[in-house]
Amino acid sequence: MAEADRETILPVILCGGSGTRLWPASRESMPKQFTPLVDPTTSTFQATIRRVADPAVFARPTVIASAESRFIVAEQLAQTGIAADILLEPERRDSAAAVAVAALHGARRGPETVVLVMAADHVIEDAAAFARAAREAALGARLGQIMTLGITPTRPATEYGYIRTGGALPDAPGLERVERFVEKPDAAGAERLIGEGALWNSGYFLFRADVMLAELKAHAPEVLEAARAALANAVTDLDFVRLEAVSFARAPKTSIDYAVMERTTRAGVLAVSFAWSDVGTWDAVWGVLERNAQGNALRGRVELIGTRNSLVHSEGEGLTTVVGLEDVVVVTTPDAVLVASKAQSGRVKDLVSVLREKAHPEADAHRRMYRPWGWYQRIDIGERFQVKRIMVTPGGRLSLQKHFHRAEHWVVVKGTAEVTVDERVVLVHENEAVYLPIGSMHRLTNPGKIPLELIEVQVGSYTGEDDIIRVEDVYGR
Amino acid sequence: MAEADRETILPVILCGGSGTRLWPASRESMPKQFTPLVDPTTSTFQATIRRVADPAVFARPTVIASAESRFIVAEQLAQTGIAADILLEPERRDSAAAVAVAALHGARRGPETVVLVMAADHVIEDAAAFARAAREAALGARLGQIMTLGITPTRPATEYGYIRTGGALPDAPGLERVERFVEKPDAAGAERLIGEGALWNSGYFLFRADVMLAELKAHAPEVLEAARAALANAVTDLDFVRLEAVSFARAPKTSIDYAVMERTTRAGVLAVSFAWSDVGTWDAVWGVLERNAQGNALRGRVELIGTRNSLVHSEGEGLTTVVGLEDVVVVTTPDAVLVASKAQSGRVKDLVSVLREKAHPEADAHRRMYRPWGWYQRIDIGERFQVKRIMVTPGGRLSLQKHFHRAEHWVVVKGTAEVTVDERVVLVHENEAVYLPIGSMHRLTNPGKIPLELIEVQVGSYTGEDDIIRVEDVYGR
Repeated sequence: MAEADRETILPVILCGGSGTRLWPASRESMPKQFTPLVDPTTSTFQATIRRVADPAVFARPTVIASAESRFIVAEQLAQTGIAADILLEPERRDSAAAVAVAALHGARRGPETVVLVMAADHVIEDAAAFARAAREAALGARLGQIMTLGITPTRPATEYGYIRTGGALPDAPGLERVERFVEKPDAAGAERLIGEGALWNSGYFLFRADVMLAELKAHAPEVLEAARAALANAVTDLDFVRLEAVSFARAPKTSIDYAVMERTTRAGVLAVSFAWSDVGTWDAVWGVLERNAQGNALRGRVELIGTRNSLVHSEGEGLTTVVGLEDVVVVTTPDAVLVASKAQSGRVKDLVSVLREKAHPEADAHRRMYRPWGWYQRIDIGERFQVKRIMVTPGGRLSLQKHFHRAEHWVVVKGTAEVTVDERVVLVHENEAVYLPIGSMHRLTNPGKIPLELIEVQVGSYTGEDDIIRVEDVYGR
Repeated sequence: MAEADRETILPVILCGGSGTRLWPASRESMPKQFTPLVDPTTSTFQATIRRVADPAVFARPTVIASAESRFIVAEQLAQTGIAADILLEPERRDSAAAVAVAALHGARRGPETVVLVMAADHVIEDAAAFARAAREAALGARLGQIMTLGITPTRPATEYGYIRTGGALPDAPGLERVERFVEKPDAAGAERLIGEGALWNSGYFLFRADVMLAELKAHAPEVLEAARAALANAVTDLDFVRLEAVSFARAPKTSIDYAVMERTTRAGVLAVSFAWSDVGTWDAVWGVLERNAQGNALRGRVELIGTRNSLVHSEGEGLTTVVGLEDVVVVTTPDAVLVASKAQSGRVKDLVSVLREKAHPEADAHRRMYRPWGWYQRIDIGERFQVKRIMVTPGGRLSLQKHFHRAEHWVVVKGTAEVTVDERVVLVHENEAVYLPIGSMHRLTNPGKIPLELIEVQVGSYTGEDDIIRVEDVYGR
């Protein structure tokens, strides 16, 4: 234990998923790890960060996220008050490339740094048990093993991979060798695996940076070289480290499980028994939520009669009602509604594919669109006009811009706006309005200490998002 | 037939229902008979009016409606281009009072006028078959019978009452006596009734005005006297005849079936076999709609996978999706969503009762509220502000009004507004805005030839509908 106490573990949180299986609450533009799906006050990303906040056990965390999600990551980190390094992937290259970046990043602290790779979208309520497990597994990592956490199964799940164990690791009480990783089984296979003592594969990995680098070099050298060049040529931009795009794109798209874990002789596992879920489907979300006497998990403005064992999740102001059903999932958002058989909620991923094929904008875009300066959402649209509600955080500053096809009326309903219109700069207070003629160069800033909210009425022959000329932007867009 | 050709039939359409069983598309503020539920281009009220538009068979129709729905009735009538008398009930007193008014109204044309009482919310596609049936049944009415149309059952329905027939009427080929009206049976009872040749009770009645008045006098004299006084003291207001409220309120609340039909010896029936539905539940709506190969009836922006025999009805801009379900009803509107077992869709009425108990405004109020001058709908609301879209028909004129707690910004997005603010009258064109300070006396008029649309942003400490002082109103509100 002396070794474990001396050096802390470097947590690396992978935020790359798009979470389409939890559509419509989770979408490409705001994936599930950033939404308050399970706990209305926090996202699973924030809960994950908090789980590794104890400085006695963990070093300052690193977050690996997509470039598009950088402002959400920064805002959610700021809300937790926890400092972290943020590495941005220019595109998704699957988990092997991300783990290679994590190992290289860890090696900068020292070759024997123990790295803990974590998903941002899992639910583990018992943070203390998780920290204990990480410390125990780190012992194996320090001995040169690539450790995983294996969850003791509580039911014959068919949606998880399994780990068959292969006997105790020497010098590491409680740790075992991995005999084999098993793909998601059918129901009978799951029963058999559990009978054999197999564990669920949680996807958490702990390893010494030098060990993982050696294994990558042996089993996935192209991934390693792409990651190495992308990190070496990375650019620091605001608070982010942007991996270099051309190099990173050379990494083959492959998972760390396939690239390394199924090939290495150094795979070890710690069996743990805390409650864990990857909340991969709406059925799984229902499974982790609190449920009432009828077995219903409810969120938002909902009313049910004669309904049991269902998840009814309502976002926004609308009223959602269910009559006489069992085992259903109903998710309503201001622009999209999902009604699904709970048992078939895994097919939501297929649904999203259909929505994309048919070019429904709701497939990927949320009605509330997050931007570095705050957010906007459309509240009405008609022929030749569109209405938006816009929120600008204190200090937020939109780009200097103009439009060719629309004029805009801004009515401030909360806070104070500093508005630039061509040569003029004016302060616009609550209950005041300002007019921006077609073609005028304008900019919106919140110079105040409270959020600014305004209603924008656009009038013109075309009100699409792409009618915008950005002349200057503090966020480098 | 000579008799039938000489005198036309006076159709009286009863529009009094609130249609809560088809919530949320149908609500107190816009009941199902006025919504385009079955045909996206027309309401069942409009279809009913058109069904009796042939002047060779029918006289100018009369509509009996609630006072609250008068502007919807007038607007929908104007859309059909069919002229009608409109009698307004100051409150709902059930069908006996309405039929008494219909008989009294008919008697003014002549005591032997044949009156056809019709519901506004039934679906009958074959208008020619209906007109033929009305002419045939009118023969029985002229002979002094109170005729009903009995629908030949196509399935053992439990949601309809039945009519047992009692042999041919003399001098009237094809017409029969009613032996007995039977309340809604259970499934076994329905099978038995059909085996005995019983018919569905459609609720259509044809009678000579003098005959119905005599029967009412004999069996429901209080209803008759209340209706007589309410009609005698009625006031003509714009294009409406308002029944006098105090007299009308004295009518006992009872159905014409109970008050007269189950007691009279003059009940006759014509068996008809055209397709008919009272579309009383979402299940019944599904039954009359066109369905695809999977048995799904779809409306609006919807996408389904693995779903069968379901009704998915989406109003507004949102996308509605269903995955892996059978025999469900999904109805989405901009402010409320219903998901129900199709078999249990009759319980929607109970759901609405629950919503009323819990004071959910969506129980009765639609998001789009119809007014004599057009409509408004809320598009956003927040702390200290609210945003509405307002449409004013050409010539429409809102009341002269003021508010104590809110200022208003109006941005015209279509058409031209004439705006009065205190002493000033200004024309506001598309893409222009006007500001109405707190306490200012203001009025909005559409002086133009096309609909006026504007976005209203209210800002203030209280934005409820009841913060309004009406100084003058052309619609007598």
